[in-house]
Amino acid sequence: MIHVGVNGYGTIGKRVADAVAAQPDMTVSGVAKTRPNYEAETAVRRGYDLYAAIDDRADAFADAGLDVAGGLEELIEASDIVVDCCPSDIGPKNRPVYEDRDTPAIFQGGEGADIADVSFNARSNFEDARDADYVRVVSCNTTALSRVIAPLEEEYGIEKVRVTLVRRSGDPSETGRGPVNDVLPDPVSIPSHHGPDVNTIFPDVDIDTLALKAPTTLMHTHSLNVTLESEPDESAILDLLADESRIFTIPETADIDGAGKLKDYALDSGRPRGDLWENCVWAESVGMEGPDLYLFQNVHQESDVIPENIDAIRAMVTDVDAAASIDRTNEALDVGLESLFDAHDDREAVPVDD
Amino acid sequence: MIHVGVNGYGTIGKRVADAVAAQPDMTVSGVAKTRPNYEAETAVRRGYDLYAAIDDRADAFADAGLDVAGGLEELIEASDIVVDCCPSDIGPKNRPVYEDRDTPAIFQGGEGADIADVSFNARSNFEDARDADYVRVVSCNTTALSRVIAPLEEEYGIEKVRVTLVRRSGDPSETGRGPVNDVLPDPVSIPSHHGPDVNTIFPDVDIDTLALKAPTTLMHTHSLNVTLESEPDESAILDLLADESRIFTIPETADIDGAGKLKDYALDSGRPRGDLWENCVWAESVGMEGPDLYLFQNVHQESDVIPENIDAIRAMVTDVDAAASIDRTNEALDVGLESLFDAHDDREAVPVDD
Repeated sequence: MIHVGVNGYGTIGKRVADAVAAQPDMTVSGVAKTRPNYEAETAVRRGYDLYAAIDDRADAFADAGLDVAGGLEELIEASDIVVDCCPSDIGPKNRPVYEDRDTPAIFQGGEGADIADVSFNARSNFEDARDADYVRVVSCNTTALSRVIAPLEEEYGIEKVRVTLVRRSGDPSETGRGPVNDVLPDPVSIPSHHGPDVNTIFPDVDIDTLALKAPTTLMHTHSLNVTLESEPDESAILDLLADESRIFTIPETADIDGAGKLKDYALDSGRPRGDLWENCVWAESVGMEGPDLYLFQNVHQESDVIPENIDAIRAMVTDVDAAASIDRTNEALDVGLESLFDAHDDREAVPVDD
Repeated sequence: MIHVGVNGYGTIGKRVADAVAAQPDMTVSGVAKTRPNYEAETAVRRGYDLYAAIDDRADAFADAGLDVAGGLEELIEASDIVVDCCPSDIGPKNRPVYEDRDTPAIFQGGEGADIADVSFNARSNFEDARDADYVRVVSCNTTALSRVIAPLEEEYGIEKVRVTLVRRSGDPSETGRGPVNDVLPDPVSIPSHHGPDVNTIFPDVDIDTLALKAPTTLMHTHSLNVTLESEPDESAILDLLADESRIFTIPETADIDGAGKLKDYALDSGRPRGDLWENCVWAESVGMEGPDLYLFQNVHQESDVIPENIDAIRAMVTDVDAAASIDRTNEALDVGLESLFDAHDDREAVPVDD
């Protein structure tokens, strides 16, 4: 049983903790948080041992009526491995704390690639993290791009990737973020950092990315072009993507037109927190023009990296191989949204009136 | 066991079906839908018998691979009572269909009050629906106002109620609705229909309401003023509201500043679909100025009427009394969000950095 500590219990950390708790070979040794807000409260209600991430804040938890089991050092001591889910740029301050206690750690994609020995995507480079002490799970966007690039590269070869990322500006709970009525080129200089980040996983893939921020909170949207080294038809591409356990191809019949209905579908399907761990590719968008593949996909920024963190733990501290780890993670979380509708479906839509 | 049919399986209908299925004394006889979209698919996956609400659409379901058990008439025949969750203005066409089959029915608050014999709120006028054949559960906003008015009227007496409702413009899945960058007086003529709708529950309460539409999807927000017939202090008001099982008073320590974090809290708490069946009243907003009570509350338009529909079923076709029905509904759904934090809490906030 792997004892996993979670440092930072926010959007990502709380999901990592729940995913760890769902695995047959892992347990949550505790979660660390800086302040006693609603998330700290639900951590206690979920039965996780709560640690004060900043020692002199322990009193604030006590004042709020929440018992803490100790500080960050105690959490590290109770853990075989720590998943660091602190906000970006806190990781570099934390790494020496983990090193001092000879404890391996996983960082998130908001940190620079140099925080860790390896950048990680389970589908693409699982073995690179084998026995590594410090690993970085790449960001939600890089994760999603890697999941599409891996099978295309293997099956057809890739000449060039070009992506426009229309990113959500903040998570639903991040009420301080803007814009509320603009679309920002972000960064305005081209290319964005996403292409180089993909190259931490696929060093040899030629990729240019452009990024925008839109006034939405639910999901990122990618407009993707991949120039392939051969010219498969659309049906072959759909079959290839449908075979990937962490890609969901949205069938036309489902009548899902954006992130609102996608999230509604996830909630209807009983997903915890309405999470969509899979890339969501609109089947109708998949098109080939000569060697050029085009598609739209949505990416749930709060959750698509969660199964990747679980697989990274196994790569680092077990001898389980990639396929077995991915299967085990998927089964424990029920990753792999499958519609009863056929993604190849092209029936005419029924008039909408309910 | 009460066999409950649900006609209209959208935002409200799918939640009513799940709530019925959770009750010890009810079962879902089936759900009717007009077209085979993602919601129809999840109905099948949840094991509900699916009926084609419009007879000549049965083929569309078959084409999509979804088996239907029959048409609307068959659903009615299989049901002791039907909850009509069709879009507004469809109810008047459906009522004769229910009458022809001597089947009682519940309509939603989007319909006019004259569609039914009784307008209903469990806390306020449960017995008025006793043995009625046709009952209308009032709208999400009227439900929320009734839940606050009932205890205030009973405890202190009410001289006057004034409310500004800042409504969400559409549900998260309603991508066709606007505005996206405006706040609309809606209706611009004063007062809005909400006050008269409250009077269907409280005929003698003097209430004026003004309504706006804001470019949000998550929840409605009420700015409420109640001039009382006495002058209790704020603490007494907080205690009164905290005793109501369908009102959640948001404590300051939770650090919840709006609907985004409220929904996040609901999801963290494991609520199905992140639903908030309770009025959400900010404890910090509760203030008295002489006899004038002021407060802000948020209302989850997708779910606050769900427990009310369940209680309306019991009022109509059982002899269970109001208190017992409300308790049974609350227990089966786990209505009654309770924070570990004290709503009276007034500690200073801890600096925010995670």
